[in-house]
Amino acid sequence: MSTLAVPGSVPSPIEDCEQLRKAFAGWGTNEQLIISILAHRNAGQRKSILKTYHETYGEDLLKDLQKELSSDFERALLLWTLDPSERDAVLANESAKKWNASNRVLVEIACARTSAQLFSVRQAYHARYKKSLEEDVAFHTKDDFRKLLLPLVTAYRYEGPEVNMTLAKTEAKILHEKIKGKAYSDDEIIRILTTRSKAQLGATFNHYNNDFGHPINKDLKVDPENDFLATLRATIRCLTGPDKYMEKVLRLAINKTGTDEGALTRVVVTRAEVDMKLIMDEYYKRNSVPLDKAIAKDTSGDYKDFLLHLLGHGSS
Amino acid sequence: MSTLAVPGSVPSPIEDCEQLRKAFAGWGTNEQLIISILAHRNAGQRKSILKTYHETYGEDLLKDLQKELSSDFERALLLWTLDPSERDAVLANESAKKWNASNRVLVEIACARTSAQLFSVRQAYHARYKKSLEEDVAFHTKDDFRKLLLPLVTAYRYEGPEVNMTLAKTEAKILHEKIKGKAYSDDEIIRILTTRSKAQLGATFNHYNNDFGHPINKDLKVDPENDFLATLRATIRCLTGPDKYMEKVLRLAINKTGTDEGALTRVVVTRAEVDMKLIMDEYYKRNSVPLDKAIAKDTSGDYKDFLLHLLGHGSS
Repeated sequence: MSTLAVPGSVPSPIEDCEQLRKAFAGWGTNEQLIISILAHRNAGQRKSILKTYHETYGEDLLKDLQKELSSDFERALLLWTLDPSERDAVLANESAKKWNASNRVLVEIACARTSAQLFSVRQAYHARYKKSLEEDVAFHTKDDFRKLLLPLVTAYRYEGPEVNMTLAKTEAKILHEKIKGKAYSDDEIIRILTTRSKAQLGATFNHYNNDFGHPINKDLKVDPENDFLATLRATIRCLTGPDKYMEKVLRLAINKTGTDEGALTRVVVTRAEVDMKLIMDEYYKRNSVPLDKAIAKDTSGDYKDFLLHLLGHGSS
Repeated sequence: MSTLAVPGSVPSPIEDCEQLRKAFAGWGTNEQLIISILAHRNAGQRKSILKTYHETYGEDLLKDLQKELSSDFERALLLWTLDPSERDAVLANESAKKWNASNRVLVEIACARTSAQLFSVRQAYHARYKKSLEEDVAFHTKDDFRKLLLPLVTAYRYEGPEVNMTLAKTEAKILHEKIKGKAYSDDEIIRILTTRSKAQLGATFNHYNNDFGHPINKDLKVDPENDFLATLRATIRCLTGPDKYMEKVLRLAINKTGTDEGALTRVVVTRAEVDMKLIMDEYYKRNSVPLDKAIAKDTSGDYKDFLLHLLGHGSS
């Protein structure tokens, strides 16, 4: 489901590093050479390149890239080159520190990753920031948002396929009652959404739809201005259908006056190696335009080229 | 700081298993032989014995022990033989399912373990119970207790030595204001206690004591009947001085009409390999009686012998 195109025969990390040094050498930078390497290596291969670069040249590849590149292309390439857990730690840190009610990045990281991946992010956060992810999330958020986000980012959900149908029915009813009573941040809603496994929640939301006649997210869409409701909906969508959720983020990032490069970059770099094919299918279904065409129309230069390479263009 | 006495030359797991089979064979059980082996092997060695036993005899050593032994001795030996993370998962599960306001086991597991150990418990919980620890804790607790216990059991605290003294001063002040206003379950108290590192909290509690003239736990001791206050105090003690906390649990377990075997067993098996020497020193300082003497006076039979072996008696 990844769109990453890794060549059949991958050069050794030493060769890749030599090419990157060439791309940095002399006047100007050879951005196309950088893209042709880094946009076509998977997480393990990029890790080896970072390590080899440091061992060979005694320097940090990420810092060298930072010196050579600029603006949206720089940010996209740096985020991409990072190990996925470190990347999420960086995104979570930025998001926690500049937190505002319309920011959904923490929800994405908490809900659209596996339990083991989310725990890796917490480990990377310790190493990088000398504190815990939850410490920053708790410090920078408050009230209902803290009440929801803190258990989301600290969750370690069970991931087995077991589903308790009786429980699903009971908890669908609890959710419905609370939502009907407009008690959107009720302890029970938070408890169910933040602790149950994705499989269990899938069954609960099915019951909700069958027993009460609407998808739960429809009942949470009563006030488009309410950011807490939007955060609840994002939580549910990231837990149950991250590809559909990401399609919507891309759609909103592209189809507006002025592109939202932050969101566009984030979704492409975090999903290219995960489920970007599904997101592209979903995008086409929803918009009748291929995602790569839409991105190409809305971006330019090396930034555009890089994103398109991550979407499968220029495969070697 | 462990009191575990492992012989200089340890028999192979195969030899240990053979001896255990002998102890089970024929009429009656040779409890002393079982104790002489299992009470003198560390966690890694016990794990090898469990594995070897299963490979050699196709049976589960824990189940065989269960068949051969009974009552307090059985429970103590089974808990001891388990891998520490599995043991904590079992204790946490029992505690969550039969949760009541005077139960402090979840606090002990959440606060008197390292961050990595607590995460291991959550992994063991998935494997054993096919759900998450937080799922059960959230389901079986409520109100203020849930508000405190859920972030405690899901914490992955930073463990570096870094301390922010300005923050410690600010947060000591926040704690003091909330406690003065009797807002014991205020979001800010919960946030500070459940997310800050142990080093940071140590600095915060020092500031509290210096700036406001009392240890924080003294200010939380206004109502001896209030179980939530007692839980807050236990949290603070397990985070900052688990040996002193455990000494108190033992003291209360022994020095009452009828021993509290549940607490006695739990503390001895969970701390023998951790800090039991410190707990024994603390006990002697506080009670002018050695802990092993006090336990010997209050218990009997194989149960007594087993606990004393874990406390360093009968070293080979």
